Amino acid sequence: MDDLLTRLHEALRAGLPAEALITDPDVTASYAHDMASFCPAGTPAAVVLPRTVEQVQHVMRTATALRVPVVPQGARTGLSGGANASEGCIVLSLAKMDRIVEINPVDRIAVVEPGVVNAVLSRAVDDHGLYYPPDPSSWEMCTIGGNIGTASGGLCCVKYGVTAEYVLGLDVVLADGRLLSTGRRTAKGVAGYDLTRLFVGSEGSLGIVVGATLALRPRPPVQLALAAEFPSTAAACEAVCAIMERGHTPSLLELMDRTTVQAVNALANMGLPNTTEALLLCAFDTPDPGADLAAVGELCVAAGATEVVPAEDAAESELLLQARRLSLTALETIKSATMIDDVCVPRTKLAAMLDGTSAIAEKYGLTIGVCAHAGDGNTHPVVCFDHADEDESRRARESFDEIMALGLALGGTITGEHGVGVLKKEWLARELGPVGVELQRGIKRTFDPLGILNPGKIF
Amino acid sequence: MDDLLTRLHEALRAGLPAEALITDPDVTASYAHDMASFCPAGTPAAVVLPRTVEQVQHVMRTATALRVPVVPQGARTGLSGGANASEGCIVLSLAKMDRIVEINPVDRIAVVEPGVVNAVLSRAVDDHGLYYPPDPSSWEMCTIGGNIGTASGGLCCVKYGVTAEYVLGLDVVLADGRLLSTGRRTAKGVAGYDLTRLFVGSEGSLGIVVGATLALRPRPPVQLALAAEFPSTAAACEAVCAIMERGHTPSLLELMDRTTVQAVNALANMGLPNTTEALLLCAFDTPDPGADLAAVGELCVAAGATEVVPAEDAAESELLLQARRLSLTALETIKSATMIDDVCVPRTKLAAMLDGTSAIAEKYGLTIGVCAHAGDGNTHPVVCFDHADEDESRRARESFDEIMALGLALGGTITGEHGVGVLKKEWLARELGPVGVELQRGIKRTFDPLGILNPGKIF
Repeated sequence: MDDLLTRLHEALRAGLPAEALITDPDVTASYAHDMASFCPAGTPAAVVLPRTVEQVQHVMRTATALRVPVVPQGARTGLSGGANASEGCIVLSLAKMDRIVEINPVDRIAVVEPGVVNAVLSRAVDDHGLYYPPDPSSWEMCTIGGNIGTASGGLCCVKYGVTAEYVLGLDVVLADGRLLSTGRRTAKGVAGYDLTRLFVGSEGSLGIVVGATLALRPRPPVQLALAAEFPSTAAACEAVCAIMERGHTPSLLELMDRTTVQAVNALANMGLPNTTEALLLCAFDTPDPGADLAAVGELCVAAGATEVVPAEDAAESELLLQARRLSLTALETIKSATMIDDVCVPRTKLAAMLDGTSAIAEKYGLTIGVCAHAGDGNTHPVVCFDHADEDESRRARESFDEIMALGLALGGTITGEHGVGVLKKEWLARELGPVGVELQRGIKRTFDPLGILNPGKIF
Repeated sequence: MDDLLTRLHEALRAGLPAEALITDPDVTASYAHDMASFCPAGTPAAVVLPRTVEQVQHVMRTATALRVPVVPQGARTGLSGGANASEGCIVLSLAKMDRIVEINPVDRIAVVEPGVVNAVLSRAVDDHGLYYPPDPSSWEMCTIGGNIGTASGGLCCVKYGVTAEYVLGLDVVLADGRLLSTGRRTAKGVAGYDLTRLFVGSEGSLGIVVGATLALRPRPPVQLALAAEFPSTAAACEAVCAIMERGHTPSLLELMDRTTVQAVNALANMGLPNTTEALLLCAFDTPDPGADLAAVGELCVAAGATEVVPAEDAAESELLLQARRLSLTALETIKSATMIDDVCVPRTKLAAMLDGTSAIAEKYGLTIGVCAHAGDGNTHPVVCFDHADEDESRRARESFDEIMALGLALGGTITGEHGVGVLKKEWLARELGPVGVELQRGIKRTFDPLGILNPGKIF
């Protein structure tokens, strides 16, 4: 083993500048984890931080020659353990490949390296009057490569969809080091099977994304928001259904339950209504957002809202969004640890999902706060528990699983936007069924016959 | 061979009602072709018109047992020979599986069988205040299953994207007869590799789509259009670039060249300006389309438009669209045959693409009319020729190819929305390169190890 380690370091060193290779175990150990709890992680044999495609190719050729697993990483803000190290792996961090190569306002595309931080790209395209919608809550830290790996969502999805819808083409280093270009920089294209989309959400298990051509949109008007208080989550969900049924297209439609609202207030004193059972946030970036919000406000009242508070201006709207973005962080302060579910159900089943989650919390004697991209039916039940308490930890894991079972029973999916990683592997098989898993494994073998790309993830 | 034919007919008959199986050679021969010229087609051994999933499964089990190729068909309006019969194949027409199973305005989805005609679905969802955007010119005839197989586009794409963006989940009968469900009926979902998207545009080569869950949108306001006349296609393309650069989002942005305009006038006497070099059609379905059209009109004038004529009302706008939709049919009347290219280039290269196409027409001494989804950079150069004239036919084929070569040289794709079929097989390899083709073939083997699903298509 030590011999392999030496040979691996030597082989890597042969094609990399000194600063791109980390072998100090104290340092490499810090690359073992993403942000998921309860996910096993091994010790990396090396961490590589390449700056060029050729360096990535060298890493993959080396890994293939020595049969060493490779785990690609971005900012490690993932929530499913998808970027956790395997024992003895090469951690391949794309964080230093962070150039924005091109922003083209006529073709409405950006060409980027994978390490570009989401917020950096968003601001850069904004300078050109353009808009890159995908906005995970971690957008100030997470990278485009990581967003592609997990097919990230965010608050924008109810109007603008997820990362997958903005990836036009990819440059990918394959397991054996060969370079593949997929897709296009045109608005349309149907030449052959859609390999681009296959890589999006594949969590680094099919290849290493080293470049991406992204679709942009014209910058919309600044959004204006309202907050509505409801006496129950069911009433808030009724409002959500009414808003969508009436043909509204909000740019944001989010729900925070009582636990979440109180946690955010406790953390940041945002002045949210502490006694509401459910707070609904709705925003429009239309030409006349005030009129749209007025119509939505009426639907909220009809569904039982006790209070509807439109934001005075864009700044106040942004504050409401900040409160929502703080939700996960705030819920993490309740106990020493959290597990974050990501179940997405049809909108019509959202009320049943939230009621069921509440019943699960009661059954297991746990605090489970829920924030949700309500317009998408995408809920994030956050199971709060004490890591040191073995029994509570067990109950946390069981309730986490029961929430996924509920989501599947309601016709939903176990993951709307966080990915499978190691956290939900066994649940993926339940969702896909044996035929689906068999075909997915077949695809994996086609791209990675030696099984060295992020092994042990997804399935 | 006759023995195999007898065994095939018997085996098929064992699991199908009499009216679902056609073996009369005179009738089966009429199922040999889609609408592409120059594409070889074989003689079907049988045509099956199933009405249930079980019947499709029976066909695929039979085909697997006897190693007989299966060619799925919808309305056969395709333009690449993707639905052409192979010699001795089973033609599997999904035309009779034409039920709309569900339309759900809250979840904004429709669940349909593959044989539903695009226009039938569009009208049905319209009755619920909803909108299914994909609108190929053949929308009154073509089926959703065919649209999925070829990842069809249409006039709407510049704002609403292509078919792929509206397919959430699929039921697919695999080569061996097993049933696979992919995707979801939720707004978001990232559980495993995106098999749904892999099937979209796969031209029946990976499985038989027997059900689809489609995303719908709220019905937008009725669109209002303008027509602008330009002294050159280059000037019209300059206007297209200016419109997109200024952040406009038209619901339609189409170009017809002089040849096309004159052909449409000759066919239908639509009163289009007979002497213009390029006619640009632009429409908006925004809350205030008049204001958007006024802004676009100014950009057209700045780019050199000699005349800008806004439609008086929705009816006049619809007339303009009808003229555009007639383009291919009109160009087909110029000579006895046509070959229709489908090259899509980055918007910034559209002028170069059109100038180059014009030069190719001159070089080969042919009439090549061009209509284009200009906002997408998606051009349809239509090569007109006399089928009986061998030399002209050869020149037609060569110019058809040279147009694709030009598209690739400009950073484009050989097919924006019509698919590869048999017409562009060799060109697909040029676009994808050897690594891409190898991986695509690997995927094909995973889904169809015996190679019985629409063999000889795509690659």
